[in-house]
Amino acid sequence: MRFTTETSFDGVTERLFTLGEVPGVLWTPGDAVGGRPLVLIGHGGGQHKKAPDVVALARRLVGELGYAVASVDVPSHGDRPTEEKYARIAAENQARVEAGEELGPLIAGFQALVARQTVPEWRGVLDALQGVDHVGAGPVGYWGVSLGCGLGVPFVAAETRVRAAVLGLGGALAAAEDAARITVPVEFLLQWDDERVPRAQGLALFEALASREKTLHANPGRHGEVPEFELDSTLRFFARHLR
Amino acid sequence: MRFTTETSFDGVTERLFTLGEVPGVLWTPGDAVGGRPLVLIGHGGGQHKKAPDVVALARRLVGELGYAVASVDVPSHGDRPTEEKYARIAAENQARVEAGEELGPLIAGFQALVARQTVPEWRGVLDALQGVDHVGAGPVGYWGVSLGCGLGVPFVAAETRVRAAVLGLGGALAAAEDAARITVPVEFLLQWDDERVPRAQGLALFEALASREKTLHANPGRHGEVPEFELDSTLRFFARHLR
Repeated sequence: MRFTTETSFDGVTERLFTLGEVPGVLWTPGDAVGGRPLVLIGHGGGQHKKAPDVVALARRLVGELGYAVASVDVPSHGDRPTEEKYARIAAENQARVEAGEELGPLIAGFQALVARQTVPEWRGVLDALQGVDHVGAGPVGYWGVSLGCGLGVPFVAAETRVRAAVLGLGGALAAAEDAARITVPVEFLLQWDDERVPRAQGLALFEALASREKTLHANPGRHGEVPEFELDSTLRFFARHLR
Repeated sequence: MRFTTETSFDGVTERLFTLGEVPGVLWTPGDAVGGRPLVLIGHGGGQHKKAPDVVALARRLVGELGYAVASVDVPSHGDRPTEEKYARIAAENQARVEAGEELGPLIAGFQALVARQTVPEWRGVLDALQGVDHVGAGPVGYWGVSLGCGLGVPFVAAETRVRAAVLGLGGALAAAEDAARITVPVEFLLQWDDERVPRAQGLALFEALASREKTLHANPGRHGEVPEFELDSTLRFFARHLR
């Protein structure tokens, strides 16, 4: 893990890093000493490790709870080069949709393919971050919606170090089998009028989670319109579970 | 409104009252001076104004937020006499269920009938409470699940003084038309494995609410197993909306 630039603003230190081909960012309190809980954030499709919603959540987790937060670019996103194989599949899917095929199962298959790359990448990043002085091997949480849910469900299912996860804006087609292996507490966000994920698919993914404690938060509005107060709820959820 | 006994415990003053034939209870901070937000709590079926979950919620609203809280007995519950007409209908419904009729629509019809009595009763109680010195005409909230939802939906729909409501464990059969007249913020509790309210009916009632801000909190478990952390969420919801 190679750290490059470091900046500080408003009590939060931001450090860019690369681990192999994976570019990432680590946020910690400016005065951090010793270990602390770590939350990994998975960004949305077409977004990147420093997308506005990622940064807003990270700054609150660091500023209000004193956590460490990290996010990395998904392949073909942010500072990573476009990967030929994914671009080719995306183009093929586009053509299949235009020919009348359903979008949902195609997205699901695509996310499952990408997850075969991101799950080991993210586990490697977690290994490395837990070796950083003021992160350490404390409790780990995961936050990811939309693409961050599609890739997050297989990650959380595979990674026993993750003790609690906020997921959502995703459907059962993408991830039901992996969801059935998740047993940690989950807060699941669903947009009641989601134009990309059919409501029944979102409810089915919540249903598929094997967690004894899981809580569905559904709000009116479209895919991108999760209300601001859910951010408060996310903070309280992690505060409750990452002691 | 006639106040009878008054007791104080742990900073909370509890005063029993009657208004006409309606027995109720008012909780306020021990040191209350001047007006404050008021939350009305509707108890569940077979319960009463001082059922354990009612008291627990009331004590937290008073102790942590400084609110006034009131609850009254529903007809044929608590300190009220059994009403012949309701007892007769309940017995008839029981017989119809045994003869193979569906329970849901029968309960819905029954709650609608009782609501014709409780809506004006509760509005009268609200009138009277707003005349009490250390309650006053501040913002009003409503909390009620199960029977407290079935009777609460028509109450909140009719009563413009109610600015925010926590509802749930109820279905659309009972209350969809009234729900479509509710426009204030609602936090709606649904138990994923509710043995009394079919999941689809609960989701349909949430759907029917006309509120621009409404948030569904669904958790695993049966009708009576709403998790403890939803109480925290209820407090934050009222704190956000009853300023």
